[in-house]
Parts: sequence; C-alpha cells; structure tokens
Amino acid sequence: MTIARQMRLGVSIRYLGYHAAAWRHPEADPGAASKLSHFIRLAQTAEAAKLDMVFLADGIGLRTRDDPPGALCRSHQTAELEPLTLLSALSAVTSRIGLVATASTTYNEPFHIARKWASLDHLSGGRAGWNIVTSWSEAEAWNFNREQHMDYDLRYERAAEFVEVVKGLWDSWEGDALVHDKASGIFFDQSKLHWLNHKGKHFQVRGPLTIARTPQGRPILVQAGASEQGLEIAAQSADVVYTGALNLDSAKAYYVNLKDRMAKYGRARDDLKIMPGITLFIGQTEEEAQAKYKQLNDLVEPELGLSYLYSQMGDLSAYPLDGPVPEPKDPRVRSMAANNLALARRENLTIRQLYSRIAAGFGGRVLVGTPEMIVDNMVEWMEAGAADGFNLCPPVLPLGLDDFVEMVLPELHRRGLFRTEYEGTTLRENLGVPMPVNRYVAAAEAAE
Amino acid sequence: MTIARQMRLGVSIRYLGYHAAAWRHPEADPGAASKLSHFIRLAQTAEAAKLDMVFLADGIGLRTRDDPPGALCRSHQTAELEPLTLLSALSAVTSRIGLVATASTTYNEPFHIARKWASLDHLSGGRAGWNIVTSWSEAEAWNFNREQHMDYDLRYERAAEFVEVVKGLWDSWEGDALVHDKASGIFFDQSKLHWLNHKGKHFQVRGPLTIARTPQGRPILVQAGASEQGLEIAAQSADVVYTGALNLDSAKAYYVNLKDRMAKYGRARDDLKIMPGITLFIGQTEEEAQAKYKQLNDLVEPELGLSYLYSQMGDLSAYPLDGPVPEPKDPRVRSMAANNLALARRENLTIRQLYSRIAAGFGGRVLVGTPEMIVDNMVEWMEAGAADGFNLCPPVLPLGLDDFVEMVLPELHRRGLFRTEYEGTTLRENLGVPMPVNRYVAAAEAAE
Repeated sequence: MTIARQMRLGVSIRYLGYHAAAWRHPEADPGAASKLSHFIRLAQTAEAAKLDMVFLADGIGLRTRDDPPGALCRSHQTAELEPLTLLSALSAVTSRIGLVATASTTYNEPFHIARKWASLDHLSGGRAGWNIVTSWSEAEAWNFNREQHMDYDLRYERAAEFVEVVKGLWDSWEGDALVHDKASGIFFDQSKLHWLNHKGKHFQVRGPLTIARTPQGRPILVQAGASEQGLEIAAQSADVVYTGALNLDSAKAYYVNLKDRMAKYGRARDDLKIMPGITLFIGQTEEEAQAKYKQLNDLVEPELGLSYLYSQMGDLSAYPLDGPVPEPKDPRVRSMAANNLALARRENLTIRQLYSRIAAGFGGRVLVGTPEMIVDNMVEWMEAGAADGFNLCPPVLPLGLDDFVEMVLPELHRRGLFRTEYEGTTLRENLGVPMPVNRYVAAAEAAE
Repeated sequence: MTIARQMRLGVSIRYLGYHAAAWRHPEADPGAASKLSHFIRLAQTAEAAKLDMVFLADGIGLRTRDDPPGALCRSHQTAELEPLTLLSALSAVTSRIGLVATASTTYNEPFHIARKWASLDHLSGGRAGWNIVTSWSEAEAWNFNREQHMDYDLRYERAAEFVEVVKGLWDSWEGDALVHDKASGIFFDQSKLHWLNHKGKHFQVRGPLTIARTPQGRPILVQAGASEQGLEIAAQSADVVYTGALNLDSAKAYYVNLKDRMAKYGRARDDLKIMPGITLFIGQTEEEAQAKYKQLNDLVEPELGLSYLYSQMGDLSAYPLDGPVPEPKDPRVRSMAANNLALARRENLTIRQLYSRIAAGFGGRVLVGTPEMIVDNMVEWMEAGAADGFNLCPPVLPLGLDDFVEMVLPELHRRGLFRTEYEGTTLRENLGVPMPVNRYVAAAEAAE
C-alpha cells in the first residue's frame, strides 16, 4: 500500500523524552537535558534520517506541582536548557534539519521574537521555526509580574496582534535591499527598507528590524491552538500545526475544520501541514514492544504517577492503586476528568493502569507495536485525512529516536512514504510550503 | 620591561568592525555580518590566540539616523545578527573562549535573561557573560510600546533591581541539587531548590529558574556604566567593566573611583577587571600603520562622516569639509560638542579630519602604530593603574583581528604580558575572578 503524499516528520527532543520515568531507564543519562552533546547527538541522528525538524516545547516557569507531596522531586521535567539558545547552538552543527523553538506571545515582546527568530533563520541557512504559544499556567504568570494569568480571550487577542507585528517586522528589509556597492559607498537601497509604524491595542512598534530578510522569507510558523481564536491564527498564518489528537475521529474533525478555514485567507489547503503528536514503543515483535512499555511504566513511582491525575481528578493517594478509579468528588473537575474516567471504565483500568497510560506519553497518543503496526496506523491517519505527518515524541531519548530510525524508518522507506534525501536546503523547501511575499513588494506590484 | 599582572583581552566582533567604512575595505565581505561562517572564523581566531572573550555590543532598534540625508544608506551598522543567538551558535564550535552578549534591562524581563544566559553557560561549559545595559536611544523605546525612553534615573533604578532578581534566580538550584538517584526514583533533593519570591518596585518574580546551577555558578557580569548608579552596580556585581576612556588621566580616575567602591560590598579590588576599549591600526612600520588608517578614512563618504558629528554638533554639511570646524549654533549641543571642538582647535583639524577621527573607531580610542608602540601604550595604561586589560575593537573584521594576532600578540608574548595557554576551562577561571557562593548555602552556613 502506498499513498501519493510524502509524510512530514518532526521529533520533539525536550527533556529526556516524554515518559515520566524516562530518566530512570537503565540506558538514560539523567543529566543529559542540560548537555549540549546530548542534543547534538539527537539532532544529527534526526538529520541523518532526513526528518523535517526537531522541536522544543517550552514553559517559562516550573509548572510541575508537588501534588501529591513527593511528586515534584521525582519529576525530570524540572531542569532543562532554554530552547532558543539550544537550537541556535544546534544550527552550527547541523546543515539541513529544521529547528523549531517555542516562545510565548504573552510574556514576550514582538520585536525580540522577530529579531531572534530571524537571526536563527540566518544562522541556520533557512531552517528556523517559531512555535507560537500563549502560556496557560499560573506558574508562568508569577515569573512575569502577574498575580494570575491573563484570561484566555485576552491572551489570544494579544497573540493575534503579536503575530501580525512579527510578520510585519520580518518584511522590514526587502530581499534585495542590501546592495553592498563598494564603489559608490551605498550599503543598502533605502527605498527597500520599511518602517512598520504599528500602533495597536497591545503593541506599539515602529521598526524596522535591524536584520536582513531571512533565507526563508520568514521563519516557519508553527501553532497548536485548538480554540476558535487559535484555529483562526493557524488558518491565517501557520505553516505547521501540532495537535494532541488522541483518536482518529477527533483528528479528522480538527483537520477538516482547520483546512476549511484557510481559503478565506487566500491559502491552499496544502500550504499548512497538520502533524499530530505520537509516542511510540517499538519492538520487532509485539511482545518486545510491550516489554519496553512495561519496563518504563514500572519505573513510575506512585507519587509521580498520581500527579498526572491530580489536576484533572484531584488527590487519589488515599485509594488503593490497584483498585478501581473513583468518581472525582471535586466539583471543579475539568473536562479531562470525564475522559480519564470513561477510559478507565471502558478498559476496566486500575488507578495505577490509568496513570501509567498518561505518564507514558505526557498525556499524548501512545502506540505500542511492531514497525508494521505503527506504519499501518500512520497510513490510516493520513488516508483518512487526519494528518499530513507526525510529530514524534519519543518516550526516552536518545533511545526512542534510535528505535524509530532503526525499525520504523526502513518500513516507511519500503512503502515509499518518506524521503531518503532532503528536497531542499531550507525547512520551507523540505516542508513544501510557499515562500511569503514581502508586503511592500506586493503592495508596489498591486499599484502598478 | 615586564609587569607582574597578566593582561586581560577581549575582542568586540560586532558588525564588520568599528570603522564607519569597514565594509568598503577591499578585503571585506560586506554581507559577513549576517553570516555564521564569518563569526566562526573570528571566534576561532580569537580562541587560538587565547583571548579571554569575544563580545557583542547591541542595540534593539535602528539607532542610525539619516542625518544629514544620505548617511543612513551608507552605514553598515544597520543589519546584523542578534547577539544571544549568535553566541549560542558559537558555543558549539568553540571550547575555551568566553562569550559575552549584551542585553538591556529596560526592555527585557529578568526571568528570560536569567534563563537564557544560564542556558548559554551550560551550552558553552561555563563561558557565558552578560553585558548589562539600560538602552539610551529613542529608537529602542519606539520598538517597545513607548513614546520616549525612560529617564536615566528610572532606567538605572530598574537595572539595579533587575540584576538582583537575575542573580537570585541563578541561585534557584544549589550546585548539588540534582542527585539523579535512579534506584530510589529521586531526581533532585527538594531542600536544595529555592523559590525567589521577589516582590519589588519594578518586578514580581516567584521563580525558581527551570535550569540547573551553571558551570560558572553564574555567568560573568559585564557592565559599562560611568554614572553614579552605574558605578554602584558595577562595584557590587560586575566581574568585568568595559570603558570608553579616551585618555589616560580620565581612565585612571575612573579606575580608582570604581575600585574604591568595591570594599563596601565585601569585594577585593582584583575581583573586577577594567578593560578600556581600543581600536588599533597596526603596521610593521609606522608608515604602514598610517597608510592603513588613511586607506579606510578615505572610504568615508562626507554624508556618512558628517553623521558622526551630527548629534553632538548639528548639521555641518553647509560648511567646507576641508575648512575649520565652526562653533555650533544649536544651544542644545551636548557635552561631547565641547570635546570635539577642543580637539579640532588643539590639533587644527578640518571638518573632514575631525569626523575621520571619530568614524575610525566609532568614537572610541584609536591607536595607530607599530606593535612596539602599541604594547608600550598598553603597558603604560596598566602600570598607571588605568586598566587590567583591553577590549579590542578592530576597525575591520577579520582583518583587524588577524593583524593583532600576527603582530601585537607576539610582542605581548615576548614581554610576558599575555598567556600562551588558557589557565582554565571557564571564562571565570581564565579571568581569575572568584566563584559566587549560592545565597542559600551561605545563609545555611551562617546559621550553623
């Protein structure tokens, strides 16, 4: 079975992997998340496999709470490197793979973001991407002069304006502005430098950006918003959307919903790639894959495991771990409690089994199986119109990425689903999304 | 002649060099300021020479104005890479040289700065430095939601609090907090993680930083403040101070003034290194050096040259370039006008000669001569108690750095004034400044 479209693949390289107990794996280096050498190894492995991009999610505060007590000190998702600096370092020791880092529109200024990501795009020769988030946690608000975090609508209103300002700053210099005419002494053509002069509700930014137009025109824009406002930002501006879809039906609905919105912004459906996250436990046999899954789950201490249920279901530490999942008593329980409870009832899971499911892939979709089973599932999602590719979230790093490269990648190649060589030198070329037209060039052409 | 102290040396690698016409030099690549390869070449050259650090000054706006008209399009100080991303990239391809980037306390948040520079310190194995500035230009204010820039006292008040918050965040994790005990499942010792809980006039920051204590304890702090408030921040916290001293007497006065202030913060005089900036035109003969100086000065077009006088002396474009420097008519003339005028009168300079002086080293101190003459001058400054070393600001890059390495460095070695091998692996060790003690460790020891 082959399908016409090539699959897009990214890999998330945050922490030591997405599994709660990743750091306790016998082969894991628990201190690796602070070491450049670890990330060079990961990025070079991903590049040798011709993956589209490496990706770093981010939060700007310690989101992990000590609920129940004893959870925090067991979490490896507490100490790490900062994504922009890390990907900038990786730009010097890779040559083709995309470098996508997260930054918040709530706790940054557009001038800094426009400038830093433009710089990364230059440093990498056109491989930078910005994953746009709005920051949802109080822990982040408390680090940035606030008592509580901004409400959802205000965050997204700010985000929409923020993205427009950043895109405007990226158009400051036309692509051929820097003429560098030594004979006449003219360094640049002043008619091709533009001041943005933005005055909006949230920002006043004059510009221009003090950095030349970048190799990709502008960095790749990545988004993950599932709300109405998030979908509109994605439909208008995103080149890539990561999703956390847990099942095929919801993934299909999201895919259609988002792609249907693109036409009103003058964009083709294929100009945006939707890439659901997926955590894989891979074995040459199903038993081997299940053994890998069980090995890590057995390393999740109850204090840590229960913390994955705490925010949705409250403190379950008084209940027997190997007994049934109780109905939550807290009336403030969020919508995910219902999902967890339905899952537990449907599959008759104990508390321990339920938290193991969630802790295995940080709440995301988990697949356990052989390369054939996994690729079958990927193909099913792509043929159903639920995905243009996938964002791999390995349970342990580098092991999970190595497993993918050694076992799944050959199966993808066998079926003609994934490249064996990069198509271009920039992330934009490899993703197959169009170059943006500078707004000032477009306006001049329209006026002619 | 030898002196006991070893000289500290850094090199500023911003733009294509400090000379206004650097990009027009026959050997210069005018587009190099946007190319990683150019900066790798510079950093590796400086590291092979065992220099203490490379340094990037910064502004977050287009400061260059088109005054008089025709100046802006001739300036190469308009398009560049962003310093933090650039030095992060260089961290992956160097191993010993310090990496010092500038960031403004006026248009940043302390959590971001603490986190990003801590990350750079990890990435580089202990070679990060933060040059603390407050941003003086309206062009920067306009990019950050302000109509005009914050007044001087308020900027420095904010800076002082900002630096204290950043230092506090850097103490979030004690050095041995991450125990990584796979057997027990304890990732870190929770008693060694600290929340800052800062609530001040300008900032509220809870912490903790989500990054382990850095190889240098904290990044090296660099400062350049000459005002009363700036001197106090430097005396309390800086490891290195860059100065723009133009003559020996003022440099000596500054040196004594600053070092005298350190005792009240419990610091030894040698815990802070004062490094005046210097732009060198070097030749094996004085004639060769003068020819290099003249070659570049002849490439400064009048429009650009006059822009170097504009902000201090107003528009002089109506006067003959090869005639005397007129008295400024504008009553708002700033203090530097008097200096420029005194210089012009003392040496009987024409307008062209005056702007050439300033444009040659971006207003900083310029020396033109043989290696012997230059080292004699350096020794004079060090023996007079005006400098602990120098921050080189080459007129053209990489040429000016190559000249220094090929001609001045051997003379420094011959006189035993500069290292032939790095003393340590971190910038802190190489500078010979002490490791900071974590405040929580110090408090616990004091309580015992």
